[in-house]
Amino acid sequence: MSVTSATSAKRGAYAKTPARKAQIVEAAASVFSTRGYNGGSLREIASQLDVGLTSLVHHFPSKTDLLEAVLVYADEKYIGEFDMIAHDSGMRAAVLDLVERNFGHPELLRLLAVLGTECSSPGYPGNQWFVDRYSRLREEYRARFEHDQAVGRIPARRDPAVLATMLIGLWDGVQLQWLIDPGVDMVATIGAFFDEIEASR
Amino acid sequence: MSVTSATSAKRGAYAKTPARKAQIVEAAASVFSTRGYNGGSLREIASQLDVGLTSLVHHFPSKTDLLEAVLVYADEKYIGEFDMIAHDSGMRAAVLDLVERNFGHPELLRLLAVLGTECSSPGYPGNQWFVDRYSRLREEYRARFEHDQAVGRIPARRDPAVLATMLIGLWDGVQLQWLIDPGVDMVATIGAFFDEIEASR
Repeated sequence: MSVTSATSAKRGAYAKTPARKAQIVEAAASVFSTRGYNGGSLREIASQLDVGLTSLVHHFPSKTDLLEAVLVYADEKYIGEFDMIAHDSGMRAAVLDLVERNFGHPELLRLLAVLGTECSSPGYPGNQWFVDRYSRLREEYRARFEHDQAVGRIPARRDPAVLATMLIGLWDGVQLQWLIDPGVDMVATIGAFFDEIEASR
Repeated sequence: MSVTSATSAKRGAYAKTPARKAQIVEAAASVFSTRGYNGGSLREIASQLDVGLTSLVHHFPSKTDLLEAVLVYADEKYIGEFDMIAHDSGMRAAVLDLVERNFGHPELLRLLAVLGTECSSPGYPGNQWFVDRYSRLREEYRARFEHDQAVGRIPARRDPAVLATMLIGLWDGVQLQWLIDPGVDMVATIGAFFDEIEASR
């Protein structure tokens, strides 16, 4: 069955495009988080939603288009109040608040972790998205740490760019340990990091 | 074709078992590191070696048997001189030495990262292996940090178990940033962590 003829024959079925697109992205996030991007198939995503493959392909012509939508969806769950708390109360408060809220959706964290490692090879689908994501995160956190230094929360002699790379690494890595073994105490570990960088030494 | 009949018919072909097993593990490591465990197939591994699927199944009856062998293979590359340097010169020297040596085989690091995230779900093949691996690593590093404290390299007031979880997290997380973007300076970032924990404050 050709995609084009199916599309024109059944256009009515695609009326509620934004809602359907959102459903597809959520189903894809669920499939990719358990099977990875490589292991997850468009067919499995379609069957989760009880729609045909043709409907899926109508909204997302390729698997990489769907990957990109899933990545944006997963990442946006992370932003929320973070910026506001970081500005008002500093990075320690913002990070620990987000860590607490994240406890409620490990599957989304696992999804970003699985896709981040799968896409880490240059030239792999999604690689550029992760290169840009981490580059943007490092710059955002650098600016936040610089602000914390300006208002006296963190001594100024530390390099805020190094603090940003350290925090992002520590957060990803301790979160992976926690995903593997929920007995790992993320709050205590990240709190101990802030104890270190807030000390005057 | 049944595995049993093929095995008895061609037993001569399996004479050099240890060498052949090692070749299969190396090919599987290569396939899993680019496609993940879910995305990599036994068929692709067999075809890389130009052997039949039956030969593969003779050595590794299931895909999870092969996964376990690949994990041990990848992890053993990590040990080497680490223990000796850690004992003689402390954790900073041992970790930075291993970081430098690891620059030469990013694909093996990527493999462990991909499999670690894929296997992070409880009940997933390989999950228990990673639970045990991280638990063992945390205990080993805790003991190493305790030794560094005993000989005066790190002030004793810090909790060595927290230092172990932090270091493993930071190392995994910064390494992921480096795998995604080789411009990330692992040595400077991990060095800055040791500057923090060695300070007396």
